[in-house]
Amino acid sequence: MEKEKKQCKDLSLRETARFLKRHDNFIILTHASPDGDTLGAGYALFYGLKEIGKIAAVICADVIPGKFKFFVHETDVVPLEGSTVIAVDVAAKGLLGSLEETFGDIVNLCIDHHISNSRFSDYLCLDANASATCEIIYELLEEMGVNINTDAANAMYTGIATDTGCFKYSNVTAKTHLIAAKLFEFEIEPAKINKIMFDTKSRNLLELERMVLDTAEYHFDNRCIILSVTAEMQEKTGCSGSELDSIAVISRCVEGVICGVSIKQTGAEKFKISLRTYPPLNASEIGKELGGGGHAAAAGASMNGSLNEIKEKILAVLKPKMEAIDAGISSC
Amino acid sequence: MEKEKKQCKDLSLRETARFLKRHDNFIILTHASPDGDTLGAGYALFYGLKEIGKIAAVICADVIPGKFKFFVHETDVVPLEGSTVIAVDVAAKGLLGSLEETFGDIVNLCIDHHISNSRFSDYLCLDANASATCEIIYELLEEMGVNINTDAANAMYTGIATDTGCFKYSNVTAKTHLIAAKLFEFEIEPAKINKIMFDTKSRNLLELERMVLDTAEYHFDNRCIILSVTAEMQEKTGCSGSELDSIAVISRCVEGVICGVSIKQTGAEKFKISLRTYPPLNASEIGKELGGGGHAAAAGASMNGSLNEIKEKILAVLKPKMEAIDAGISSC
Repeated sequence: MEKEKKQCKDLSLRETARFLKRHDNFIILTHASPDGDTLGAGYALFYGLKEIGKIAAVICADVIPGKFKFFVHETDVVPLEGSTVIAVDVAAKGLLGSLEETFGDIVNLCIDHHISNSRFSDYLCLDANASATCEIIYELLEEMGVNINTDAANAMYTGIATDTGCFKYSNVTAKTHLIAAKLFEFEIEPAKINKIMFDTKSRNLLELERMVLDTAEYHFDNRCIILSVTAEMQEKTGCSGSELDSIAVISRCVEGVICGVSIKQTGAEKFKISLRTYPPLNASEIGKELGGGGHAAAAGASMNGSLNEIKEKILAVLKPKMEAIDAGISSC
Repeated sequence: MEKEKKQCKDLSLRETARFLKRHDNFIILTHASPDGDTLGAGYALFYGLKEIGKIAAVICADVIPGKFKFFVHETDVVPLEGSTVIAVDVAAKGLLGSLEETFGDIVNLCIDHHISNSRFSDYLCLDANASATCEIIYELLEEMGVNINTDAANAMYTGIATDTGCFKYSNVTAKTHLIAAKLFEFEIEPAKINKIMFDTKSRNLLELERMVLDTAEYHFDNRCIILSVTAEMQEKTGCSGSELDSIAVISRCVEGVICGVSIKQTGAEKFKISLRTYPPLNASEIGKELGGGGHAAAAGASMNGSLNEIKEKILAVLKPKMEAIDAGISSC
């Protein structure tokens, strides 16, 4: 008999709370290349479960960046056999990274805020209106009536702050601010957290940004900026990986620019492209045409070729869209 | 008979609400070089007073920057004679700029959140725990029971967001987030406002930042960064005034730096110094020694001489403080 396609059942907050109370041993999975929200959600859930006597482990495929260590403490050792597997902020099993092989098909419950969630788990607690998975975790802990300790509160604040650009983006709702206000009751250190998350750049990154600004090219009447990060720059400064995210941030902040492009070298003739757009441009569409994908305002792609070839390809994809805008066509 | 020194009487929120209801014609003054909080407070108060049939004008000594125009509409023409004069977010009459001459000594009510308020008005509604004067205005409008329209809500959100670095700084409290949550009820456009206030840099400013990063000098084991903005850079890029504030922001974000110094040329041998420090350094102390002043974390001074002379003076003031830190002395 062929294996049937798994059914995924939606759970409300109350049902999820009951589900957690009914089980005892948990393995909590975060996504690979962990960010503040997946780690905040994972650890806040861990601390909440500990408060009611459960056993739980938090597992991540990749090394946890040092800046999150203030809310990360050792978790329990939990055998896979007989445990309940939970994934937090994981929209698809592929995002589990190297954990996918072991856990991809045996996730019991996924708690997430991505509308694109691929429903790979047995049960799904999804709130696509939540700015961060940590918003859902807060409501869940409240629903369960468990004590929130300072570590859990710091973790949830970090998740919400990092997923909203510190309450800056359009995913913020009144509820986001209400939860933030409530988290202040638990002796969190928001200013310290925000300094670490948003206002700390290494000297090397500053040096790399200087080099990258030298590469700035403007196209289509300054509506498009292209910033390039070569392998040489990365070697010289020692900056790589998620540290380079700040380049895409620069590209989306330039006045008049509706398409910010960052091109990051990842190999001899290999580049990773980040796209940041404003309406009527749609980053997701552009990303797709370049062989990648993403969201309406932020997308990306991996491309092969020389830096100049790649720039030409990107400009070729953008040209008809910019012309459509000039001609008054509203969606492109 | 000599003029007696003016007495300044403190008013509670409730007393301030009653004061406003008792009077009919208002002149609302903002401080010079207006920012989001003084304008947000002034206009939100104006819209609130209009809702209950009062006549009011908002006056500022300087031109209102274009980025605030979305909540700025024409106010009434109010004769000085018989009007009640209110200052919002104005800590001392000197900050009224060119309005000081006419209004400095006849301010009836000041609504402010600066603990340093010099009590130059007849009445003072001060809440030094408020992150922004707009927080106080929100509570005042609520206390008065007046309708809050979208313009007033956008104005107050702008004031709170700009005075807190979008909820990032240590002046944010649970109340700040609660008020933000309430403002969401009034159809405000937070993401749009935040994009304008925090995520928009002109191409010229980006070019100037690139030039300024080329000037970066590190001292005292990388604990001090000095960034310089020459007159030539300002001429080349056309960037000046408050646009250059972003340079001080860069200086405070470098990892390991506890003293960020920006030196901005303002004349042939004239420079304005911005200091951004972290404990145990105290920017206010350093600023004073350089002939200026300010707050514990942010201060400034105006200095004459060549760029090199000024750098040397600053380093000479910093040297004993850095040595004291090295020797384990905790406050300097």
